[in-house]
Amino acid sequence: MKAKPISPTAVKLKDKLWNERFRLVKEEVIPYQWDSLNDRIPGVPPSHAIENFRIAAGESEGEFFGMVFQDSDVAKWLEAVSYVLATEPDAKLEETADDVIELIARAQQEDGYLNTYFTVAEPEKRWTNLRDWHELYCAGHMMEAAVAYYEATGKRKLLDVMCRFADYIAEVFGPEPDKMQGYPGHPEIELALVRLYHATGKERYLNLSKYFIDQRGQQPHWYEIEAKGREDAPRRHPHDYLGPAYSQAHLPIRQQTTAEGHSVRALYLFSGVTDVAAETDDKELLEVCRQLWDNVTNRRMYVTGAVGSDHFGERFTFDYDLPNDRAYTETCASIALVFWAHRMLHVDLDGKYTDVLERSLYNGVLSGISLDGKSFFYVNPLEVWPKACSARNDLRHVKPVRQGWFSCACCPPNVARLLASLPHYVYSYTSDTAYVHLYVASE
Amino acid sequence: MKAKPISPTAVKLKDKLWNERFRLVKEEVIPYQWDSLNDRIPGVPPSHAIENFRIAAGESEGEFFGMVFQDSDVAKWLEAVSYVLATEPDAKLEETADDVIELIARAQQEDGYLNTYFTVAEPEKRWTNLRDWHELYCAGHMMEAAVAYYEATGKRKLLDVMCRFADYIAEVFGPEPDKMQGYPGHPEIELALVRLYHATGKERYLNLSKYFIDQRGQQPHWYEIEAKGREDAPRRHPHDYLGPAYSQAHLPIRQQTTAEGHSVRALYLFSGVTDVAAETDDKELLEVCRQLWDNVTNRRMYVTGAVGSDHFGERFTFDYDLPNDRAYTETCASIALVFWAHRMLHVDLDGKYTDVLERSLYNGVLSGISLDGKSFFYVNPLEVWPKACSARNDLRHVKPVRQGWFSCACCPPNVARLLASLPHYVYSYTSDTAYVHLYVASE
Repeated sequence: MKAKPISPTAVKLKDKLWNERFRLVKEEVIPYQWDSLNDRIPGVPPSHAIENFRIAAGESEGEFFGMVFQDSDVAKWLEAVSYVLATEPDAKLEETADDVIELIARAQQEDGYLNTYFTVAEPEKRWTNLRDWHELYCAGHMMEAAVAYYEATGKRKLLDVMCRFADYIAEVFGPEPDKMQGYPGHPEIELALVRLYHATGKERYLNLSKYFIDQRGQQPHWYEIEAKGREDAPRRHPHDYLGPAYSQAHLPIRQQTTAEGHSVRALYLFSGVTDVAAETDDKELLEVCRQLWDNVTNRRMYVTGAVGSDHFGERFTFDYDLPNDRAYTETCASIALVFWAHRMLHVDLDGKYTDVLERSLYNGVLSGISLDGKSFFYVNPLEVWPKACSARNDLRHVKPVRQGWFSCACCPPNVARLLASLPHYVYSYTSDTAYVHLYVASE
Repeated sequence: MKAKPISPTAVKLKDKLWNERFRLVKEEVIPYQWDSLNDRIPGVPPSHAIENFRIAAGESEGEFFGMVFQDSDVAKWLEAVSYVLATEPDAKLEETADDVIELIARAQQEDGYLNTYFTVAEPEKRWTNLRDWHELYCAGHMMEAAVAYYEATGKRKLLDVMCRFADYIAEVFGPEPDKMQGYPGHPEIELALVRLYHATGKERYLNLSKYFIDQRGQQPHWYEIEAKGREDAPRRHPHDYLGPAYSQAHLPIRQQTTAEGHSVRALYLFSGVTDVAAETDDKELLEVCRQLWDNVTNRRMYVTGAVGSDHFGERFTFDYDLPNDRAYTETCASIALVFWAHRMLHVDLDGKYTDVLERSLYNGVLSGISLDGKSFFYVNPLEVWPKACSARNDLRHVKPVRQGWFSCACCPPNVARLLASLPHYVYSYTSDTAYVHLYVASE
């Protein structure tokens, strides 16, 4: 029997540090972020994320507003709520979540498609730019939320919505000539599909994840094929400067030996690859994961367990290029490293993975959120000269103090979902052995 | 009697280092740059600078090509040629220069205006954007060339052309209500007008320089006035982010106490201010110069005598912000510091100015040109990791090896004119004293 994490519902934290983080997430961060998603916080840029779903459901008038991946903020919030509910039931919070889930269900299209940007703003452009837009990324986050909510509450509504969407995606993408041979520019759905497979037992989802992973970076290159089919004006996008390595599509994954491009994309991808490799017992692919792990953690990771050395492309650069002041070290990238470490740990049951997980959790992640849970660091550099941050262009991404919210609000809800799910990371077991991974007071 | 530099024609260098630099400029740099200005160097981006003059003169068909200040490359080349001819007559080189000067004269418009960009490409936009374009800057460089060529050869052709242009500029700009109350976005003409005044004795040129200097940064602000008069689409220009400090127009010069914005602009301006202050015995303005000198050399200068700490805006940032790897430290800025130091030296006759001059000359300037005179550094950082320069966006301005030429080719001809004029910097005199400034073997 392979080692598995003990179900979070079976773990009771009794740890001063982490119980306080949990309390913070439940009592401050989740309500605060709920207000933010509903545009109720004065002085903080509007999110419009809930309103986008209302418009997509035909229940409100107006235009889509926000990032093309604005939906994912709702998904991450729901996922965080799920972990809170798994640990500590709360009828009112569950009711709010149920309402959101009903709204999401009403925004789903007849064919199963679900994405408010493409439903509201550009319906004719669905699946036309997998490279730069985030349809499959948003789908992945909502799948994770669906699984988490189902596991926490037993309620299938969102799970059914996302299975319908996943079934539709499996009809659109695949090796068959009448399907698209594409894959997401921003990986996330790979690991989400494995979670969906675990929750439902449907191998179709595992196979779809494996397809996305193996198809990535193959020739003829999908990004070139899809570019021919559209008429975008040239834009200033990191892809235009960094090429397909920006989204880890420069080579098929089995030929990759170094972590390249956007750090969060890379680590979400590697997490999904590890999932699929472990699930299918693909020894070649597991070796790829180990080699990539070695590259990331021994050559491209900061002493804080944070990654990403260049603001431009939010990315890995090259071995040992780890400037302290211009570090990108995004909170989300440290979170992604925790995800990946947890997966690698269950492949090899080696404490070296937990060492990185712990380092990243305590240093790269916790720094991203203030003690009151209301302000956040997107970027966590090791050296800050406040005056230089405001005066120097090459430090404009570095903020000397935490910010209330971001127009690209990926980090705050990502922190919330990780902190709320901490019990998940403490123990594992096999039929005859219990493993204690973290020094966290708990039962 | 105030101290004056000894005429370069009276100084004979006998110095291994500097004689070799002179030989290099004469035998390598000037012919190489002449070929470059005429687009004859394979593999190097075309300059088109001479062709622009032919088109402006109506002697060739085609469109303007290059930077809006492409003319200044020809001016700087001519100025370097002048210094070579002042030291070492060369009939063939002089004939080439005479031909170029004839061409320049034919490109001058009937009213005295001279600028190939606005003559060929956008004649209706003359003087409509002093902030971002470089009409007065190009005029200044050509005035310097005219004075240098006149002093070297006694020939008045280019001097007369530039006096006609200066007379016309004095009709366009000034405090009178029917004139424009503008001034150049890129200072240079201020010091050039003082040279023109010295060469011709016409006070009108000194007064025009003084007008440009005193009008700079006054309210109502000329950049705002001229912006209302034109219909440009918004552009990504450093001015849009850095405001008028980018070109030292944030305050009237007499209120400035720190060096702000684009380093070359600042130091050309301060050189012109020092000239005018010395010439008019303006004690207040001299104090301004001394305070700015203190700020630049004690708080915003690298140990190499180079200045400019941020690629964005090619500029001064704030006190003690001097990163070694991301230094901008443009060759032209070190050259400008040599110019300014030489002027301050003659105001106060204090060796501290020569110390900076020498430091900048040997370290910030000489690094800008290769030993064979055929390749150049635009940026002279104190720390270079070649791999990082190609991989990191925030180091993209740093080149690990010198380049053949630049699309913005300000530095190579600027180095040439400084190296060719070195005799100018060695000695000064008053009626009863000789001053030796540099440790350069010479008579």
